[in-house]
Amino acid sequence: MYRTHTCGELRKEDISKNIILSGWVWSRRDHGDIVFIDMRDKFGVTQIVFDPSHSKESHAKAHNLRNEYCLKISGIVKERPAGTINSKLATGDIEVYVEKIEILSESEPLPFEIKDQSELLSEEVRLKYRYLDLRRPSMQYRLNLRHRVYKYIFDFFSKEGFTYIETPILTKSTPEGARDYLVPSRLQKGSFYALPQSPQIFKQLLMVSGLEKYFQIAKCFRDEDLRADRQPEFTQLDLEMSFVEQNDILNICEKFYKGLFKEALGRDIEIPFQRMTHSDAMDKYGSDKPDLRFGMELANLTDGIKEHGTNFKIFNDVISSGGRIMGLAAEGYGSISRKDIDTLTAFAGEYGAKGLAYFKIEDNVVTSPIVKFFPEETINFIKSKTGAKPGDMIFIVAADKATARSAMGALRLKIGKEKGLSDAAKLKFLWVVDFPLFTYDKEDKRWVSEHHPFTSFIEEDAKYLETGELDKVRSKSYDLVLNGSEIGSGSIRIHRKDIQKKVFNILGIDDESAAKKFGFLLEAFSYGAPPHGGVAFGIDRLITLFTGDSSIREVIPFPKTQRGVCPLSDAPSSIDELQLRDLGLKLNPKILD
Amino acid sequence: MYRTHTCGELRKEDISKNIILSGWVWSRRDHGDIVFIDMRDKFGVTQIVFDPSHSKESHAKAHNLRNEYCLKISGIVKERPAGTINSKLATGDIEVYVEKIEILSESEPLPFEIKDQSELLSEEVRLKYRYLDLRRPSMQYRLNLRHRVYKYIFDFFSKEGFTYIETPILTKSTPEGARDYLVPSRLQKGSFYALPQSPQIFKQLLMVSGLEKYFQIAKCFRDEDLRADRQPEFTQLDLEMSFVEQNDILNICEKFYKGLFKEALGRDIEIPFQRMTHSDAMDKYGSDKPDLRFGMELANLTDGIKEHGTNFKIFNDVISSGGRIMGLAAEGYGSISRKDIDTLTAFAGEYGAKGLAYFKIEDNVVTSPIVKFFPEETINFIKSKTGAKPGDMIFIVAADKATARSAMGALRLKIGKEKGLSDAAKLKFLWVVDFPLFTYDKEDKRWVSEHHPFTSFIEEDAKYLETGELDKVRSKSYDLVLNGSEIGSGSIRIHRKDIQKKVFNILGIDDESAAKKFGFLLEAFSYGAPPHGGVAFGIDRLITLFTGDSSIREVIPFPKTQRGVCPLSDAPSSIDELQLRDLGLKLNPKILD
Repeated sequence: MYRTHTCGELRKEDISKNIILSGWVWSRRDHGDIVFIDMRDKFGVTQIVFDPSHSKESHAKAHNLRNEYCLKISGIVKERPAGTINSKLATGDIEVYVEKIEILSESEPLPFEIKDQSELLSEEVRLKYRYLDLRRPSMQYRLNLRHRVYKYIFDFFSKEGFTYIETPILTKSTPEGARDYLVPSRLQKGSFYALPQSPQIFKQLLMVSGLEKYFQIAKCFRDEDLRADRQPEFTQLDLEMSFVEQNDILNICEKFYKGLFKEALGRDIEIPFQRMTHSDAMDKYGSDKPDLRFGMELANLTDGIKEHGTNFKIFNDVISSGGRIMGLAAEGYGSISRKDIDTLTAFAGEYGAKGLAYFKIEDNVVTSPIVKFFPEETINFIKSKTGAKPGDMIFIVAADKATARSAMGALRLKIGKEKGLSDAAKLKFLWVVDFPLFTYDKEDKRWVSEHHPFTSFIEEDAKYLETGELDKVRSKSYDLVLNGSEIGSGSIRIHRKDIQKKVFNILGIDDESAAKKFGFLLEAFSYGAPPHGGVAFGIDRLITLFTGDSSIREVIPFPKTQRGVCPLSDAPSSIDELQLRDLGLKLNPKILD
Repeated sequence: MYRTHTCGELRKEDISKNIILSGWVWSRRDHGDIVFIDMRDKFGVTQIVFDPSHSKESHAKAHNLRNEYCLKISGIVKERPAGTINSKLATGDIEVYVEKIEILSESEPLPFEIKDQSELLSEEVRLKYRYLDLRRPSMQYRLNLRHRVYKYIFDFFSKEGFTYIETPILTKSTPEGARDYLVPSRLQKGSFYALPQSPQIFKQLLMVSGLEKYFQIAKCFRDEDLRADRQPEFTQLDLEMSFVEQNDILNICEKFYKGLFKEALGRDIEIPFQRMTHSDAMDKYGSDKPDLRFGMELANLTDGIKEHGTNFKIFNDVISSGGRIMGLAAEGYGSISRKDIDTLTAFAGEYGAKGLAYFKIEDNVVTSPIVKFFPEETINFIKSKTGAKPGDMIFIVAADKATARSAMGALRLKIGKEKGLSDAAKLKFLWVVDFPLFTYDKEDKRWVSEHHPFTSFIEEDAKYLETGELDKVRSKSYDLVLNGSEIGSGSIRIHRKDIQKKVFNILGIDDESAAKKFGFLLEAFSYGAPPHGGVAFGIDRLITLFTGDSSIREVIPFPKTQRGVCPLSDAPSSIDELQLRDLGLKLNPKILD
């Protein structure tokens, strides 16, 4: 028997009991005459005492113990002497006098200490010794939190009548915009499976099957280029429902999140979440994932400046070319230095803005290098529209619509951050809805899906499919945004074959190519497909919301580096020539060089 | 709004309510004047009525409806007329008079009827139209049962203090005996990930991490040759625990199964399960997964026949060459025909037995073509040892130990089956324990692991590692057997680096090769690894135990054929030349031809 109790369990009531504990040497204080060890297991820490007057033999062994030795001890629980009670420790009232000790396994000197400050270590080292890194209580907390989230997901969706269904990992390439990971088939040489970028098509097929309410904690795979915080494999909470409208899906997600935040953080969040159209989000916040923890709305000044007039040529040029003039009032920024203004101008420039106009608002006067080009009524309009007050600075970008929005949106975020408005303790949820169905890809000179090609559209916009005004078609899609980050995305899907084919055609996928890639989905739609829709939430990112981590690698047990490498197992690795031959493949020396 | 109620919900209390339903046309009876439709959704079936005196417009549309059209209807709930009440249907007291109907989507003529007899269809057709196949209530039952099993797994192991942890899918090759599926890396060209055959090494690393109690519903992958009922990807319930002995693991598994059978089938099963050593199982049942739904134990006659004597040369040769003579008494088989005996002899021959001796037991006489070679006391010994009674037939195989065991074990199963003793309604669980650690592979002329190379051994057998009597080393491993099928397998693992290295060496893995393949595990064992062990259960097979299906493909939403093909999506499929180039690969024309 390895234990009668865990290291987190013993209390005053256990005094005088003979007990057995197993665990690791967490720290050791060797006073020569007496050795104290904090012994740690998954459940807590207990102080064990080696006293020669109690057991000479155990005491003798205690001198050789080192951190992270794995021990089994038996002994007697005693009350700690007055003055040595540790109220921070659940077991702090007692200590265990060791009678017998067995070293279950020794430890070499550690590559790093098992302490919670080891975030300071290089990630490479942490990942190479991940099994030691995960011993730290803060990492165990992360894994256990993740477990609790999964348990909550199962509880919640089971109660709501959803069915957990596993979709295949070895499947066919689906065009989600990223590269597929491929798996060569040995039995069908020259053919390849693809790992799923998402269970999208399979979950839609399940709706055709009449499963109605599906959920899955789904592994997804994308072979992407190096990006800040992506993993080759990641996990998403995947949902799909039939016979629902958009609001049905948003409502159930809100109910889910309310319970989840209570479970994970003990926090009450308000539902329903705010809802905002994509167009409003872009106009007011210059972003499709606005951070609503602070206001500082953008103002569209274009029409007003046109109406009230200006002699400033740049603005007039933008107005006449159909562009946009957008402004915001930065509270208290009236007194920033010329250098700070230059920094902000350069920052806006990174988003394509050719310049950044500014107006300093004082009690009775507005100053700016370009103020002379503006009649007083235009100035008054700008002040009023941006809501500027004395002490503020108004910043303005005039450019094409997209540039004006993104530069001003970025500027708003930057200033908000500088002013400490993006308070991590606040939680501001937002549904952004009515995304455009299509976006024009200027580089490739073709229309592409804003979400994915299976997304349905608002009925009244169907006419624009006929007129070719594709930018006017609003989709039935929705993103869930929390504090300026997208945490999930979904849509009502197309469920009619004719409409799906039409959308494929617009996207440049002709009937032949559609049949080859998606023939099975189109065919499924021939047999009474129900209206359906769904959503997917990135679970890794979700957990970091709870832990406050900046990287999803912190909440993944065995993550890979940005080069897709596992420093622990050394995956990916070279393989035998024979394995390649079995698959009907060989290395391509031209490419490898 | 698509529905106010589901199709399984309406009762007498709802009479006179105006309701909305959505679902599929399950069947249609067109009486010309009135059309009746059984409308189906995930939750049940409701009869809807199109009566021109109620709604002329809806009635007109009803004639054009066909099976599996997807509908939304609104109407009024009415009591069924006396004599038309359907007590088999939960909604059989009522029917809905349709006021408005909307065809949500039409259906082409179906490739097969959505009825529960479609097991009779070819599997190829069922899998190609899996989305229709899954509409059948019996398939929906299977998927929902699977969901309930998953939910129970989460509930049970959470309550027991286990943590659900996901291990990587893109990982390094592990040697579990089968071929790995490989995934070429684009960022590390020429290198490959492997899909896990099991999370074995990662779950052991989690124990080194101090997670203590881990569980996962894990996707596993094996690139195996065509075999009866395997899938390229399958799901296992994977467990690992630290600071436990074998019995701790068996106990928790029994508790799990007791609850699971109650949840899934409403059946009470007795725990603890019977436990039997591998050696006893082989001796008494000629199998390491004995079916204990019936007795018919094998008798080892070798020593007794030697003692009492025989003139039968074949037996004497077997005795002198150290072989084994095994017998069983087949109840009531005394009167089977010569032809039946020939069939059984041929059957035993398939397992390597060169012949099958038989003795017919009558009230006062024993008859056999070879009876003359046996003195009466030897005959009496054989009768007594096999427990034969008048009317029985004793069958005997004399051969080397392995052949005698397997031929007699197979014969026992065959006779048991013929006699209808393998009653599907009975549930006989058994732990087979103390497997040998090593088996000698005669073909490759080397020792291999009976379970896997991480399996620990019974301490008192350690001496045989030194003496080289490797066949005498018993492992700390256990298989869970139900009704003659292995449903799970596990072991206490080695947790010490020196011992793990020694076992690797015995298996022909030298230190260099061990370092290359398992260096990270060996290194992990250097830092205070705890004693640990675990088990894995095949979930697909488990579900078929509940459904009574013979193939795991019945309980997998989207399975592949035995050629590893998905007839629905056509995976695996050819890919663009460019995708291969990106991976630094090309097809090997020599192999492909």
